[in-house]
Amino acid sequence: MCEANVYIINKDGDEELVLESVDKIFPGDGIVELENVFSERKTIKGKIKEMALVDHKIIIEEI
Amino acid sequence: MCEANVYIINKDGDEELVLESVDKIFPGDGIVELENVFSERKTIKGKIKEMALVDHKIIIEEI
Repeated sequence: MCEANVYIINKDGDEELVLESVDKIFPGDGIVELENVFSERKTIKGKIKEMALVDHKIIIEEI
Repeated sequence: MCEANVYIINKDGDEELVLESVDKIFPGDGIVELENVFSERKTIKGKIKEMALVDHKIIIEEI
């Protein structure tokens, strides 16, 4: 399976796990909507900073 | 490997393959930078509309 783990970097530069095993991502206006393979959903304030799919890692930064 | 294929939807709603086997994605201000597992890079004007990682599919829309 090729889902990714989503982390948020806060303004202090700390990285926190937001949601594991994310399949679908919908970036919005100042938000990012996530849905994982267990159909859990989260909406995060921020924007995508970078994605490294082979490393299964997506980083969102607060804005 | 968990790379994805990146498509762009133009204003007519047509979907075109932009780059295969993308590993790293850096969304910018009105652009999306892509790098695939073969170290090929492309910068696309637009923004990410949706990602479906289990389907290995990322869709960028023109803005």
